[in-house]
Amino acid sequence: MDPAKDTLGFIGIGVMGKSMAGHLMKAGYRVLVYTRTKEKAADLLSAGAEWAESPAALAPRCSVVFTMVGYPSDVEEVYFGPKGLIATARPGAYLVDTTTSKPDLARRIFTEAQTRGLHALDAPVSGGDVGARNAALTIMVGGERADFEAVKPLLEVMGKTVVLQGPAGAGQHTKMANQIVIASNLTGAVEAMRYAKAAGLDPRTVLQSIGAGSAGSWQLNNMVPRMLDGDFAPGFYVKHFLKDLRIALEAAREMKLKLPLLELAERLFARASAEGFDDNGTQALYLLYERGLV
Amino acid sequence: MDPAKDTLGFIGIGVMGKSMAGHLMKAGYRVLVYTRTKEKAADLLSAGAEWAESPAALAPRCSVVFTMVGYPSDVEEVYFGPKGLIATARPGAYLVDTTTSKPDLARRIFTEAQTRGLHALDAPVSGGDVGARNAALTIMVGGERADFEAVKPLLEVMGKTVVLQGPAGAGQHTKMANQIVIASNLTGAVEAMRYAKAAGLDPRTVLQSIGAGSAGSWQLNNMVPRMLDGDFAPGFYVKHFLKDLRIALEAAREMKLKLPLLELAERLFARASAEGFDDNGTQALYLLYERGLV
Repeated sequence: MDPAKDTLGFIGIGVMGKSMAGHLMKAGYRVLVYTRTKEKAADLLSAGAEWAESPAALAPRCSVVFTMVGYPSDVEEVYFGPKGLIATARPGAYLVDTTTSKPDLARRIFTEAQTRGLHALDAPVSGGDVGARNAALTIMVGGERADFEAVKPLLEVMGKTVVLQGPAGAGQHTKMANQIVIASNLTGAVEAMRYAKAAGLDPRTVLQSIGAGSAGSWQLNNMVPRMLDGDFAPGFYVKHFLKDLRIALEAAREMKLKLPLLELAERLFARASAEGFDDNGTQALYLLYERGLV
Repeated sequence: MDPAKDTLGFIGIGVMGKSMAGHLMKAGYRVLVYTRTKEKAADLLSAGAEWAESPAALAPRCSVVFTMVGYPSDVEEVYFGPKGLIATARPGAYLVDTTTSKPDLARRIFTEAQTRGLHALDAPVSGGDVGARNAALTIMVGGERADFEAVKPLLEVMGKTVVLQGPAGAGQHTKMANQIVIASNLTGAVEAMRYAKAAGLDPRTVLQSIGAGSAGSWQLNNMVPRMLDGDFAPGFYVKHFLKDLRIALEAAREMKLKLPLLELAERLFARASAEGFDDNGTQALYLLYERGLV
């Protein structure tokens, strides 16, 4: 890739996409952007990004198109809609979906892209808004090795740990493994703190004892202080986490895998969603326990 | 405490007790030891510890008696048996139970001790055999602050993080919070690795992507490599972990707390126990999943 020759596209300018596209611009690339709500792209546009009226207006001009949208249904629309990326991208172009989405959808994109001479990669990320801002994302990639190597320099502009995990879909599967672990660690931290409080302990003092040893986890040490401070702002939205857990559960069922902890986590976050916590951070699970709603 | 004046007792010389008593000896204290199987104390005896034929033979000679036995029933016997510590310890002595045991048993020991002018503390530890060997244990203490301050210098000979968590029982409750978190983190790591393998990923490469970020945990980064190497040696025995989870569950039920993840973990480890994994390390949970026994 060469900033002098290659134009990049970025579709989906939310909290994540904004930072990610910004890093590509700072690396010297001309970046075309499209997102449903144009105002969200205002900062990038005033920094020199170029607006495209639709994916179809953007794709033919780009060597690489990145997508970071919301749900698998959004991914489907952007890639497979009548004016979608598969139909309109320039032959030889790279399509990189950084949305957390379904592994089998990633495989379908890969196959359809191939028939049109396009190179598709699934490349979901972890690290959240802070990771995106600091170009410190973990990027988990599925696809062909040659395609991975071709776009790796761009991924490394946005991320710190960029790893090819296997063929198409492997990036999404790795992200699912990541979310299964997070769900477990977070739920465990919540139950432990609930227990500690009920037992009359000071949860912060408990954290002092258990945070650094074999119970230690990122979720325990980062999310518990937020819960205890009554800070339930996202971070990572309950509604998005529930989407991820449902993708993981569906994929597990297709593989005939029984994962009871994942099932429990899905049930708990579905309840959190039903109780109105969709737009809170995942640490709001604590409130579900505190209110006796589990 | 003063090595020139105070004799210490240590009851229960297993993997943990042996290292812990050894540190007290190295700190200059005369240490009397008793354990059910005398051979287990051989190394300590040849290093200068003095053998006692029973808790009753040991207790009257000690300023502080530490206990590190197996199950709550063992604790009951050592403390409340007709020749137990409560009946035979020297008035003014400190009784420090480092066994992971029931919070309400710790409270009962405290109360009974008080009526005889004894000072009891519950002080379960985490950090395992390695932590014990390196005097790097986390010690979670319940009891009176003055008693805690009196024995703290001794605890600090054996541990690195020594924290008073509250009144009698608070040490045990804190340890339960610790075990709830560990159960969650370990089970989550197992499910994620099971998922990864079923999805055709290389779990070690997955670990590269997810081990350092917001999914990171001690259990993920230390237990998964053992599972993948087929190393199911303890570490921490399944049978002891199951005991801990049952104590936590019983305590939670007494507090009318619903903790579904703890319930699930107890069910999984009970199954692991029933399937013959009692003397394996907790990471053997992975085999339960691999064999479709969950």
